[in-house]
Amino acid sequence: MQQKITREQALEYHAQGRPGKIQVVPTKQTKTQRDLSMAYSPGVAEPCMEIHHNKDDVYKYTAKGNLVAVISNGTAVLGLGDIGPEAGKPVMEGKGVLFKVFADIDVFDIEIDEKDPVKFCEIVRSLEPTFGGINLEDIKAPECFYIEQTLKEQMNIPVMHDDQHGTAIISAAALINALELQGKRMEDVRIVVNGAGAAAISCASLYIALGVRGENIIMFDSKGVLHHGRTDITTEKKQFTCADNHWTLETAMQGADVFVGLSKGNVITGDMVRGMAANPAIFAMANPTPEISYEEATAARADLIMATGRSDYPNQVNNVLGFPYIFRGALDVRAKHINEEMKLAAVHALAELTRLPVPESVLHAYAIKELAFGPDYIIPKPLDPRLLAKVAPAVAKAAMETGLARIAIEDWAAYEDSLNKRIG
Amino acid sequence: MQQKITREQALEYHAQGRPGKIQVVPTKQTKTQRDLSMAYSPGVAEPCMEIHHNKDDVYKYTAKGNLVAVISNGTAVLGLGDIGPEAGKPVMEGKGVLFKVFADIDVFDIEIDEKDPVKFCEIVRSLEPTFGGINLEDIKAPECFYIEQTLKEQMNIPVMHDDQHGTAIISAAALINALELQGKRMEDVRIVVNGAGAAAISCASLYIALGVRGENIIMFDSKGVLHHGRTDITTEKKQFTCADNHWTLETAMQGADVFVGLSKGNVITGDMVRGMAANPAIFAMANPTPEISYEEATAARADLIMATGRSDYPNQVNNVLGFPYIFRGALDVRAKHINEEMKLAAVHALAELTRLPVPESVLHAYAIKELAFGPDYIIPKPLDPRLLAKVAPAVAKAAMETGLARIAIEDWAAYEDSLNKRIG
Repeated sequence: MQQKITREQALEYHAQGRPGKIQVVPTKQTKTQRDLSMAYSPGVAEPCMEIHHNKDDVYKYTAKGNLVAVISNGTAVLGLGDIGPEAGKPVMEGKGVLFKVFADIDVFDIEIDEKDPVKFCEIVRSLEPTFGGINLEDIKAPECFYIEQTLKEQMNIPVMHDDQHGTAIISAAALINALELQGKRMEDVRIVVNGAGAAAISCASLYIALGVRGENIIMFDSKGVLHHGRTDITTEKKQFTCADNHWTLETAMQGADVFVGLSKGNVITGDMVRGMAANPAIFAMANPTPEISYEEATAARADLIMATGRSDYPNQVNNVLGFPYIFRGALDVRAKHINEEMKLAAVHALAELTRLPVPESVLHAYAIKELAFGPDYIIPKPLDPRLLAKVAPAVAKAAMETGLARIAIEDWAAYEDSLNKRIG
Repeated sequence: MQQKITREQALEYHAQGRPGKIQVVPTKQTKTQRDLSMAYSPGVAEPCMEIHHNKDDVYKYTAKGNLVAVISNGTAVLGLGDIGPEAGKPVMEGKGVLFKVFADIDVFDIEIDEKDPVKFCEIVRSLEPTFGGINLEDIKAPECFYIEQTLKEQMNIPVMHDDQHGTAIISAAALINALELQGKRMEDVRIVVNGAGAAAISCASLYIALGVRGENIIMFDSKGVLHHGRTDITTEKKQFTCADNHWTLETAMQGADVFVGLSKGNVITGDMVRGMAANPAIFAMANPTPEISYEEATAARADLIMATGRSDYPNQVNNVLGFPYIFRGALDVRAKHINEEMKLAAVHALAELTRLPVPESVLHAYAIKELAFGPDYIIPKPLDPRLLAKVAPAVAKAAMETGLARIAIEDWAAYEDSLNKRIG
């Protein structure tokens, strides 16, 4: 188990040496006057004119094709709330670092001082020439829905709000494997979702795409169950209202197969867990304190499969399993958008990877002796080096099959090989 | 003399390996799960909260303080015109490379798809949380004047449109040294400026700040001399109108002490050069073809000092002598703006550096045997490693003295030492 990170260590990590976590470096030779005459005037005029005559050549002569913007206005940073764009910058830089480390994608973190969703969209839309893709981050609901939807419609590069779809994709992979292990089918399970924010809405939608029946999902927000009579809820929440207005978290948990928590710590009791159906699954993803602690839940019953958002317990639902590889696949075929098929391809690739034998290097990275598909291992570990060559091609292939790819990959073995070379 | 760069070589340089010229890399350890837990969640929450409580801490825990945006809408790229933001991207990336190589400043190149100057300003203003400074680039006149002025007023980080001020600063340093060598005084010389674009306007303004009398400047645009009767010219040009409307380039050159060309190739003849006053100076800065070739001008008379925009002749007026060091100095004292005093400090630092003995390493970089202050050496060479520690402190000191610095440098020797360590 890793040592707890102290406040001082986290601050020192960010402040030491060059403040922050990134720098921008040249990739071409820049030693001589001749080098610089190619990097800048007069040599640079040649690629400029090529791109002027054929706009697609911007992918050939600039970094655009490997460059993703991690964009936020700081209105919903981690669980810290609306702390502003400056205070969100360490998160955005950190997200960029993860993109680079896991998928060799270059990221400019862009913190925007604009809360109005219409103006925010105008700003992001105007940045299209700069980037190959847009990862929206830490933007509060309900504005995030409008923003993502609008930008997807207006832009010709992939746009994804990771807070919505990341958790959905990773937890969906975990759900596939948990149900497999528990001997249940998507179309049969009853799911209680506590929390009705951006991530919860996206989770429920994606589970339905996997076969879960909408009427088998009962969702709660901070004011109680989402039911047809609620007049105080957004359009997004309305999709998940049920007919009965009498449900409480306690009664809904009775006989439920799956609990999905995206709310806050300690809202589920051992008694509630004991009241669930046989062979249940609990995804208690509130951070840092889950809806019920791993210890309490697993003590309550032995036939449980549990996942959390924490790295110090089994089955961490960690977005880093998704976004680097989804964007890698999307960029590599120059996909116009990221559609549902591409997300589902990532889900299945993650679920399948978990069922393969785990290589020595992963055990070594986590200082553990063994790891095999089972209740304590339903999703891959973030430091698994197989993720890139497994997930990115699945996403790329889905883009090609659904007509979103602007370039085609033909030799998949060579592509996987090139991916493995990208990360040391 | 360096070999000419071919079109194929320039394209190959940009396309080989990773397309483009930059990548973004982590500066902190990212090997273990613990490292990543500091770079991202949960450790990253600590610097976020520090910044939330004290916004200035964004300079302590993120890359903002060393991060400059090179921003363009592609409306006036090099001499190529309005080729669009995508086609401008190689230039902006290249400018970023120069910032990094010469002053260890990290640059995000931002190409914006917006020509309307009001909307353009709204977009750039919204990016303030991301950056420590803004270098506007390749934006057409007259919009560039409004854009720079507006952003300087609205933003609390340094904003500079390098196309306006860069050439002005470097050529002003050259002018100081040329007049010194020719035994003339600023207040006495008559200057003909051909071209009345952004750079020419800024040159004339800066020369006046150095002591040149406004009535001694005669400026021409493509339609002729700027005179009081012209109704077809912008406010910026109106500052430089003269009373007489009879001037032609030919008559104005008669007896002129200085010719400043920021127009197009081959508009000045040997006869015009011969008609200038004794000991004249010609700065023929049109690129790639100067207003008069070096060969023709120097053949026309022997008492001439000549500068061009080209690296293959003596006295290249190259913006790279300015912007890296001006921003370095401004960032290092966290200056609110870049004011006239800071620009003039750069001018004088450049002029003074030229008068010092040239170190061996500079001779080596250019494969030349000797170089000393004189008609063929009135401005420093771009690859002179002394530039950073000479110019940046001068700019920083001017910011402190004029009240624009938010942090003070106390130990100047230590600061210069740290600058020298920044560039290998």
